[in-house]
Amino acid sequence: MAKLGGMRKSPPRSIRLYDLVLENGCTISPFVWRIKYAIAHKGFEVESIPVGFTAIRTILGGKYERLPIIDDGGTIVPDSLAIADYLDRTYPDRPALFNTPGERVAARFFDGWLWRDIFPPMFRCYVLDNYTFAKPEDRAYIRESRERLFLGGRSMEEVVAGRSDRLPAIRESLRPLRTALADTPWLGGDKPNYMDFCGLSAFLWAASINTLPPLERNDLLFDWINRGFDLYGGVGRDPRLRPLAA
Amino acid sequence: MAKLGGMRKSPPRSIRLYDLVLENGCTISPFVWRIKYAIAHKGFEVESIPVGFTAIRTILGGKYERLPIIDDGGTIVPDSLAIADYLDRTYPDRPALFNTPGERVAARFFDGWLWRDIFPPMFRCYVLDNYTFAKPEDRAYIRESRERLFLGGRSMEEVVAGRSDRLPAIRESLRPLRTALADTPWLGGDKPNYMDFCGLSAFLWAASINTLPPLERNDLLFDWINRGFDLYGGVGRDPRLRPLAA
Repeated sequence: MAKLGGMRKSPPRSIRLYDLVLENGCTISPFVWRIKYAIAHKGFEVESIPVGFTAIRTILGGKYERLPIIDDGGTIVPDSLAIADYLDRTYPDRPALFNTPGERVAARFFDGWLWRDIFPPMFRCYVLDNYTFAKPEDRAYIRESRERLFLGGRSMEEVVAGRSDRLPAIRESLRPLRTALADTPWLGGDKPNYMDFCGLSAFLWAASINTLPPLERNDLLFDWINRGFDLYGGVGRDPRLRPLAA
Repeated sequence: MAKLGGMRKSPPRSIRLYDLVLENGCTISPFVWRIKYAIAHKGFEVESIPVGFTAIRTILGGKYERLPIIDDGGTIVPDSLAIADYLDRTYPDRPALFNTPGERVAARFFDGWLWRDIFPPMFRCYVLDNYTFAKPEDRAYIRESRERLFLGGRSMEEVVAGRSDRLPAIRESLRPLRTALADTPWLGGDKPNYMDFCGLSAFLWAASINTLPPLERNDLLFDWINRGFDLYGGVGRDPRLRPLAA
């Protein structure tokens, strides 16, 4: 066999991701989680830059209020959906996040459902866990902003009280997801697409902070969740994540 | 110009559809409505065979309990999703109902959402209207089956009482649909797909029976609903349909 003198395989190309993290360094934001998947789905390595909640204003000239933001060789793109569109538009020869315009609209519908029907009741169970696991310098900000903007002035402690009584209704509200996954490996069909990554990101958010698992051990969703966490070398297998079922 | 002597355009090919109808002949079933759209989307005429609720057992040898059923030149296909799959499989050169496996899964998710979060509360507003507008010979069956199977033994009159107080929450629960349609003409993207037909069928069901319109006149969904009702020569423009807003 000839030795390929002088030829070198180029190193795997990576995309820099500004990542919203907890005190233990684990990603919390469901918007960042889906973009970790999106970058891996396109075949790139993630070069993660961990950032705490209150440090967002200290990066990139203080121009942004939210994460994720990617830096792709100098091109800065904020906002998760805009990043997904950027990746499909810029790298059309790599696996698509949206195979058709219809898949993109469906992912938006799905995300609208998550943010109306799933995240808000889960947030009212886990907002105090989010506070507890945040970086020390972020905690005052999290308490103040959450209680004022999302909890109508009530304390986090007051809102999470009795959460175990509310989890069965949250589990039941996931039924359309179980219906969709009843006879397919992925929401994307035979291969995962961005709709899978949106859904997985909700469970990764819960896994990053929960001190009371949201799901029951025999939930049919675990088949999909476990395969999803394993994707691309285990994007969702961060050892700092907490169990989703007791 | 040469006269095309002897050549005749073949008449538009039609597919026979066993249709579930009210006393006035208007389709009620949301499963039939979506298949009317599916047949038209594939470029076929609908040859409708109107059937009342209790007459289903008198057609096709009494083998079936539900509609729609299609008869495509002798091939009998029951069940709306199976019919959609049949049409895409049998006529792959015509416009697709599902452009990708992901679009099919998304439509199943969407339908799971409709049947968990939208139809049941609407049903508890309109079940008595359904009874009132049904064929006289179907009314006893409808009252008995609905009250026993879906209303826990309560009367239809008891269940619909106070429905106007419940409609605002139903309208609010449609928010993920408004989110999805915010920047696209169709759920299918630039062209409608089966997910649009599932969604439109929910509003056509309500329009076939309601004596109290479910929506407000300025609902952003009307842009999509009106364009959807106009599709394929006006599939949703049956003059027997009732207003969806006051």
